[in-house]
Amino acid sequence: MNTVAPANEAAAWVSSFSRALQAGDIDTACAHFLEDGYWRDLLAFTWNIKTLEGRDAIRAMLTSNLGSAAPSNWQPKGEAEVKDGLVEAWFTFETAIGRGEGMVRLKDGRARTLFTAMMDLKGFEEKSGPARPLGVRHKADRNRETWSEARRREERELGAAVQPYCVIIGGGQGGIALGARLKQLGVPAVILEKNARAGDSWRRRYRSLVLHDPVWYDHLPYIPFPDHWPVFTPKDKMGDWLEMYAKVMELNYWTESACTSASYDETAKRWTVEVDRAGERVALTPSHLVFATGAYGPPRMVDLRGAADFRGEILHSSQYSDAASFKGRKVAVIGSASSGHDVSVDLWEAGADVTMIQRSPTTVVKSSTLMELGFDTYSEEALAKGITTEMADMMAASMPFGLLPEGQKKLYAEIRERDADFYRQLSASGFAIDFGEDETGQMMKAYRTGSGYYIDVGASELIINGEIKVKSGASIESMTPTGILFDDGSEIEADVVIACTGYQSMHETVAELVSREVADKVGPCWGLGSGVRGDPGPWQGEPRNMWKPTAQEALWFHGGNLALSRFYSKFLALQLKARMEGLETPIYGAPA
Amino acid sequence: MNTVAPANEAAAWVSSFSRALQAGDIDTACAHFLEDGYWRDLLAFTWNIKTLEGRDAIRAMLTSNLGSAAPSNWQPKGEAEVKDGLVEAWFTFETAIGRGEGMVRLKDGRARTLFTAMMDLKGFEEKSGPARPLGVRHKADRNRETWSEARRREERELGAAVQPYCVIIGGGQGGIALGARLKQLGVPAVILEKNARAGDSWRRRYRSLVLHDPVWYDHLPYIPFPDHWPVFTPKDKMGDWLEMYAKVMELNYWTESACTSASYDETAKRWTVEVDRAGERVALTPSHLVFATGAYGPPRMVDLRGAADFRGEILHSSQYSDAASFKGRKVAVIGSASSGHDVSVDLWEAGADVTMIQRSPTTVVKSSTLMELGFDTYSEEALAKGITTEMADMMAASMPFGLLPEGQKKLYAEIRERDADFYRQLSASGFAIDFGEDETGQMMKAYRTGSGYYIDVGASELIINGEIKVKSGASIESMTPTGILFDDGSEIEADVVIACTGYQSMHETVAELVSREVADKVGPCWGLGSGVRGDPGPWQGEPRNMWKPTAQEALWFHGGNLALSRFYSKFLALQLKARMEGLETPIYGAPA
Repeated sequence: MNTVAPANEAAAWVSSFSRALQAGDIDTACAHFLEDGYWRDLLAFTWNIKTLEGRDAIRAMLTSNLGSAAPSNWQPKGEAEVKDGLVEAWFTFETAIGRGEGMVRLKDGRARTLFTAMMDLKGFEEKSGPARPLGVRHKADRNRETWSEARRREERELGAAVQPYCVIIGGGQGGIALGARLKQLGVPAVILEKNARAGDSWRRRYRSLVLHDPVWYDHLPYIPFPDHWPVFTPKDKMGDWLEMYAKVMELNYWTESACTSASYDETAKRWTVEVDRAGERVALTPSHLVFATGAYGPPRMVDLRGAADFRGEILHSSQYSDAASFKGRKVAVIGSASSGHDVSVDLWEAGADVTMIQRSPTTVVKSSTLMELGFDTYSEEALAKGITTEMADMMAASMPFGLLPEGQKKLYAEIRERDADFYRQLSASGFAIDFGEDETGQMMKAYRTGSGYYIDVGASELIINGEIKVKSGASIESMTPTGILFDDGSEIEADVVIACTGYQSMHETVAELVSREVADKVGPCWGLGSGVRGDPGPWQGEPRNMWKPTAQEALWFHGGNLALSRFYSKFLALQLKARMEGLETPIYGAPA
Repeated sequence: MNTVAPANEAAAWVSSFSRALQAGDIDTACAHFLEDGYWRDLLAFTWNIKTLEGRDAIRAMLTSNLGSAAPSNWQPKGEAEVKDGLVEAWFTFETAIGRGEGMVRLKDGRARTLFTAMMDLKGFEEKSGPARPLGVRHKADRNRETWSEARRREERELGAAVQPYCVIIGGGQGGIALGARLKQLGVPAVILEKNARAGDSWRRRYRSLVLHDPVWYDHLPYIPFPDHWPVFTPKDKMGDWLEMYAKVMELNYWTESACTSASYDETAKRWTVEVDRAGERVALTPSHLVFATGAYGPPRMVDLRGAADFRGEILHSSQYSDAASFKGRKVAVIGSASSGHDVSVDLWEAGADVTMIQRSPTTVVKSSTLMELGFDTYSEEALAKGITTEMADMMAASMPFGLLPEGQKKLYAEIRERDADFYRQLSASGFAIDFGEDETGQMMKAYRTGSGYYIDVGASELIINGEIKVKSGASIESMTPTGILFDDGSEIEADVVIACTGYQSMHETVAELVSREVADKVGPCWGLGSGVRGDPGPWQGEPRNMWKPTAQEALWFHGGNLALSRFYSKFLALQLKARMEGLETPIYGAPA
């Protein structure tokens, strides 16, 4: 392949674009983009997570923030490539206060997409590799404080004599990954975890749970899983890994600690965070508060008419963990997304008589297919080509959300053809399948609504074989003393109803702990504003409120699966570090 | 540099040598070596750890073991290089049952040194990377045993319903690294650790202890320290790392478990290992028993005439941990090697009045100097050149012990010149310095006797400044009620005497637990037979009894610092795995 031409084309673009920026010539800079070009920026220019769509949006951003960003020293990184007819080229650059990395996709010499990300704050780099700490002064010292003494003092003082700069509510993978990043950046933080041990948020889930995403996608920052780690991590093994990680990364991780309320003093610029720490009341007064309480908020209970008459038990999937007690009983599982499927299999394995009640069509994709076609950059094959998880993360981040549907549509056309037999059999069982309103499949559903899909790890076969029964195409009319009545007049018997009906938005947790007023000001988390059901517009171009400034000063949201927690923890940590160090962080774009 | 010529020279040698081996033409094979050439083999040809010195030794080995080894498929690996006038080239090869890797150093077309190492047993490779386990069958299964259920069953059954194939006495870095290797090879093993927690063997040592070796030299297999890990690990941090490692590597690690006795049934080919497990008596019956009880055996107490008259306290360094109680007291430290220096500093830091009693000269080398000149292959600079810890280990192993003194002499000539001022000042304080009988310095002392040296991390400055007093050049005559009397008539006062007088050989632990007879049959561990004081001949060419078959069937020794534990655990694990699988392992060379 001729790589000279793309390399030259990319180098010419980067050099010319950077000259225009350095000269403050915004018109010329904008002319480097296609009319409908995209620029996705993580902090470097916007101190926000922001995609600018089209030249006008780009012009507006540059007019506002080019002066403060003051980009310079653009250098190519690696080899330019041609992919899908576009020239792709990575580069590094500097801003007034940081070092960045980015990628441009060129079509006919103009940018179809530009991606820029702040990677380091000058003078506040993480101390790692050649800059790692010595760990000891090689000198006798009568005032020596040993590592363990210093660590114990930190644990004793932080939250008492010394206030953390940041409090993170929630000690799952999100809180832990962010805590690790902050630790490496020297930002004092306390993580509040309501459970007794780190990792319990995984351990307490249902017995058969294993991660649906493969290991290459799931690494935490700093300490990757070893090479013998299984492709799909069992939940308790993940729990143990998180527990060891929190320990050896020296996080200030408070177990049995629940936030009971939090309020922000706009004048003093301080939170007061009330904590129940193993029965003891502690008030923390950090400058910043991060909600990392899981991808979702409180459980969403389903409102079942006549529930009081039902003689059996009704519970939410979040209350479900031990299948054994359901052996031989008739269980109706309401909901046909991930938890509905997983709970159904878990019950079937324990010998329950399971009926899944499907209220709307589900996007199903076989795990093995998704692994092969959808996780190509997170795999042994990618590693063999030199694509590390860190590089795969940057590659994924370089694609604006607005352009994802295009590629996902193609992917799902391929998947549907490949697994046509499977889909035919699943439909024949009475199970209703869709691929989203615009046929874009599982990942877009995940980003838009976080619901309505299942990555098949075995349940679909049970549905096809009739081992798990499906009731679809009718709405629940009411509960009866012995089961559920549908609006088509049919009735199913049930001893137990398990509502796998999902969760409310994370901002409901804010309403509970801070106030309804603050929650409403901030608005919901997640969703792109795609306009599909469950993800109302206007179009945002980025997930709402995640990892970036919100409408409430000093209140942040963090989370997502392991991959999102890993990648975006870096950028949230950089935002907190910059504020702690008093750096200028001019935010471009209204919070949403 | 012209790399074509060395590459050709190396390729020609490997190809011609391998042809001779394949043809069974031992004379021709031997002619590929210099008359005084060396061949160091780890298992691949000898099922032993063995250096053959000179053509005759090589001929004898090949005559015995070439047929069973049946080497084939020799392939160059990486680029050949010229170093110190010799062509160095790496290669891979196969034997009848395994895959190997090696290196040759050529002088005038003949091998000055050959290194061969078994890396994998065919059909019994570790399941890692592309071969990693899936971790779950993606299929509903009513007989599913989850990861945590399987793990709990293993913990419950191993040592009770199921006997381990191997028992490892000692759960420090040696036992843990070996346990991890065995786990990955599917060899059931139990590790016995007398302390309450993994890592306590580090935690229980004196307060100010930090590793003297740098992080790049200290990695455990499978999970390297992260990039922010300090250069010198504090003892408690190492303890925590070992504890997490044992947990996430899923080792069967029995805490509070001391071996009380062990005996081997030569007919049944089984050990009976009596264990006190937290007060409960358990008998294990493994096929193999590994002593990993630390580099040394029981403490070596010093015999002090008149000790009964002394009004103060006498203890061994192994009993010493808390300096605080010695504040303001006069302490005589007997011994001037590593523990003597470390204990003296620890005492001085706590405010004790310390006199070090030096009984023989000590090799001292500044840590910073050693880091720069001696650890060049284990460093950030080496990593930047692509030399990983695994590669550095192989490079180190490729050099026969018989050739080490030559290089070490040069290194110490350089060190003595560089730090001449330091050595002058230290001598002027009355402290006696040597560099070994043959001026080869610290590392050779470590391999030969494991004693008589100090890597300076601060004590020498205190000695130079007179903060730590030194009594040298006179022998202890006897204790007095108030101190120590010397044969030059002088006397020093002491409230406390701490004997930093080292440890007996590991084979004394065998005498304690198995029998004096077996201990004497096996003989001492460590030492090369160099003929210097403390390391009597005959010359062995390898450390005695470590990581290889001993005179007692099914009894093995493992240990050393973190680096040796990391590297040699692989080869001990392969020997155990081969035996478990019933592979032929014809051992060449008598145990010693």
